[in-house]
Amino acid sequence: MPELRKDPIHNRWVIVSKERAQRPDYFTSSEDSLRAELCPFCPGNEKMTPPEVLAYREEGTSADEPGWSLRVIPNKYPALNTKGEAVPLGSGLLQGLNGIGSHEVIIEHPYHMTELEHLPGSHIADCFRAFKERLADLKSDPRLQHITIFKNHGKSAGTSQEHTHSQLIALPVVPNQVTEQITACKRHHSTYNHCIYCTLIDQERSEKRRIVAQNESFIAFCPYASRYSFEITILPLNHCARFENSSKQELSALAELFKESLTRMRRVLNNPPYNFILHTAPVKEDEEMESIFHWHLDIMPQLTALAGIEKGTGLHINPTLPEEATETLRNANIE
Amino acid sequence: MPELRKDPIHNRWVIVSKERAQRPDYFTSSEDSLRAELCPFCPGNEKMTPPEVLAYREEGTSADEPGWSLRVIPNKYPALNTKGEAVPLGSGLLQGLNGIGSHEVIIEHPYHMTELEHLPGSHIADCFRAFKERLADLKSDPRLQHITIFKNHGKSAGTSQEHTHSQLIALPVVPNQVTEQITACKRHHSTYNHCIYCTLIDQERSEKRRIVAQNESFIAFCPYASRYSFEITILPLNHCARFENSSKQELSALAELFKESLTRMRRVLNNPPYNFILHTAPVKEDEEMESIFHWHLDIMPQLTALAGIEKGTGLHINPTLPEEATETLRNANIE
Repeated sequence: MPELRKDPIHNRWVIVSKERAQRPDYFTSSEDSLRAELCPFCPGNEKMTPPEVLAYREEGTSADEPGWSLRVIPNKYPALNTKGEAVPLGSGLLQGLNGIGSHEVIIEHPYHMTELEHLPGSHIADCFRAFKERLADLKSDPRLQHITIFKNHGKSAGTSQEHTHSQLIALPVVPNQVTEQITACKRHHSTYNHCIYCTLIDQERSEKRRIVAQNESFIAFCPYASRYSFEITILPLNHCARFENSSKQELSALAELFKESLTRMRRVLNNPPYNFILHTAPVKEDEEMESIFHWHLDIMPQLTALAGIEKGTGLHINPTLPEEATETLRNANIE
Repeated sequence: MPELRKDPIHNRWVIVSKERAQRPDYFTSSEDSLRAELCPFCPGNEKMTPPEVLAYREEGTSADEPGWSLRVIPNKYPALNTKGEAVPLGSGLLQGLNGIGSHEVIIEHPYHMTELEHLPGSHIADCFRAFKERLADLKSDPRLQHITIFKNHGKSAGTSQEHTHSQLIALPVVPNQVTEQITACKRHHSTYNHCIYCTLIDQERSEKRRIVAQNESFIAFCPYASRYSFEITILPLNHCARFENSSKQELSALAELFKESLTRMRRVLNNPPYNFILHTAPVKEDEEMESIFHWHLDIMPQLTALAGIEKGTGLHINPTLPEEATETLRNANIE
């Protein structure tokens, strides 16, 4: 059974999951990568994964059979157990919980050899629709406090599967960096009676130097204090705490700006390893949260390894000026 | 000029340094690694680096010439500038400082083909003595607030130089994870009138299950909430806020336990990439800090890439139970 353990100094939760150590490394060299018979995410291999929890599929096709355009499954090597209760563990300074929660995989497309940003905008919007449906479903589980959706692309960004996919981790606790975000949001709101992310959008739109792209509903910019070279944040222009409250039109506009951002990044950095992470408000309904939090999506290329200074102090060294990254991304030829 | 920029949500400092982008990648494949003529850290190549700031050398030899057993130099591609003042930058929500500070390299031994833990204990104690001397010297600079010493071993742990070395970064600010540590230390001390690390040592010595090794002055254990597989923390048994106040005897005892810890780790994990980081109290003399903080050294193997969940939420997934890592490390044959 996995455990959630809390560092007593940093108040930082860690998942300790021996189950994760068993996952095979399906990442192949590029020469091998068409060997779809080995890939548990390819159509025809549905029996290699746990039964699907959501799929968008052709009429007349059955669950866990080919015919899907997008498929969501429990992770076969989950970091957390779906069954059980969050029972306290540990003693004294060292406290933990049973590692319950959900760990799912969103297989974004049936083709083995594609990348998320090469898909049509409407298909990327379907991915976001699947995120929204899974968030809505899992939020009804009273044991869960926080749900994170993220993608690892490329081996050095943490993926063990080449076939394009994202992941979802639902937790019975709120991770410490999310608590930090919320604390900052509360502090700003109590001083200025305004959302800190809305203030940030105003400043970015006035300074203009870090805006990569925007449309009627979203803005994509390189954060002033980017931890990673060519990092991009996407924010909805209208204040909204929860991604899962986005309308169909908003998800389409998000898909377009997201596709453009990834395409510019790929063009400039030549298909870099990267992660994205979707930050939506914690599960618990809370009137204050609706005013102070603003959902957002961070895209983080992984161009250099993290070193001791980053791991030990949280201080990152970024060798690229975000204003210059913006200019390079803006000038990329994406026709 | 590098900049220190502060993330307005996470209160997290980032160094933006274009100078770092210019560093060449001297990391060679194992077949090439004897090509010492290319290595700026090898004896005879002293002119390839900035002038040394400290060296332990044979009598009669001159600065920046061969004859040294350990050499400390300013980083040729520094993350921070030694000259200037920490002038505020930015506006509105987005605030920063001129990137002043120090970035030094401790070349631990003249031989290109050696590893820190293969050196005699007395030589490792000399490395710690060099850390202590550099800390003492830099603390007299009134612009500096915090000094971190760390090592990146192996390319995926962030090194660009194969020749064994550590680094020092001195900052005009305190990094956010250090501020977190201090906040937790203060909170615990104000409740229990006792140092949190001293309490932790008592609990680890009573539970015994995570102790890798110990001697008369130090304890090495796998932290209960380890973020990394086979992570090891070394703490002085006697309360002490500052590494730089360690006696000669203490540095020798530290060197022995550190050598044993690294040797066990190498044996079990087959020379893994790793980082270590030395956490000593921030520069400013402060009576409270002396009672609440306890210096320590963390060793973090890098066996799997950090993924989106770690980067975006700070929640790590560790596939190795620290109690099992401890047992494996204890059972390693290090004769």
